[in-house]
Amino acid sequence: MSAQRPLYFEDVSVGDAFRSGEHALDEAQIVAFARQFDPQPFHTDPDAAEHSFFQGLAASGWHTASITMKLLVQSLPLGSGVIGAGGEVTWPRPTRPGDTLHVVSRVLEVAASASKPDRGRVTVECSTLNQRGELCQRLVARLVVMRRPG
Amino acid sequence: MSAQRPLYFEDVSVGDAFRSGEHALDEAQIVAFARQFDPQPFHTDPDAAEHSFFQGLAASGWHTASITMKLLVQSLPLGSGVIGAGGEVTWPRPTRPGDTLHVVSRVLEVAASASKPDRGRVTVECSTLNQRGELCQRLVARLVVMRRPG
Repeated sequence: MSAQRPLYFEDVSVGDAFRSGEHALDEAQIVAFARQFDPQPFHTDPDAAEHSFFQGLAASGWHTASITMKLLVQSLPLGSGVIGAGGEVTWPRPTRPGDTLHVVSRVLEVAASASKPDRGRVTVECSTLNQRGELCQRLVARLVVMRRPG
Repeated sequence: MSAQRPLYFEDVSVGDAFRSGEHALDEAQIVAFARQFDPQPFHTDPDAAEHSFFQGLAASGWHTASITMKLLVQSLPLGSGVIGAGGEVTWPRPTRPGDTLHVVSRVLEVAASASKPDRGRVTVECSTLNQRGELCQRLVARLVVMRRPG
């Protein structure tokens, strides 16, 4: 990326790629998030999780998604912020205690708004990978991106 | 719903509907979640948010998604747990401080697994509504649902 930062709609092109920093996940984080938002034994109880669908403690998918968002806010230098209209998410494998996650984002589509001249829609594929490069989450996010003000 | 609870794959039919309890959201929750996972001024700073895209403090979409998950865990009485393989999410309007959310879920599709006889795929539309019945999030979730054991 050689584009001027912060980036606005006119700076973004299909194929642009961004790599985030890392987030190290541990059991305490997984359990704390799950107790609040996804209180199921395979997310909150390491012993019970051994005999569950996940065969061991796994992070809530929404925890993985939330960590992904934190990494996106740090790595997508959009001048108007990272504003999602929606997206498609899949979790091909569980995120585990001890995993260190990073996100690789790639712009799939750029479309000016037909009705609002100050903005456009940018579709970004965000791959959340663990320390072995295995895909823990794939998010195709539809972002609202503003044109440069003034 | 007159089906036996907990519910397993063979108990679920297209059109089955579930209504969750409520979650009351306030500014402190919105700011705390956003500081951890979505640190952008329109989610963390009520004053800065006034002049932002959202024209006032708004919850991170991932916060709305996480609260939705909490309400789903309480309201979908699946014997094997609420296990998501993925889904499509949209946020038609912001979730605001003072909103009280509930989730209405409706089964859209039920499909036995072709390769794994112990389970199937259930697609559920989960509408997260505020106290005025306005749609804050629509999630079409693809769940893995196990057959009754034994």
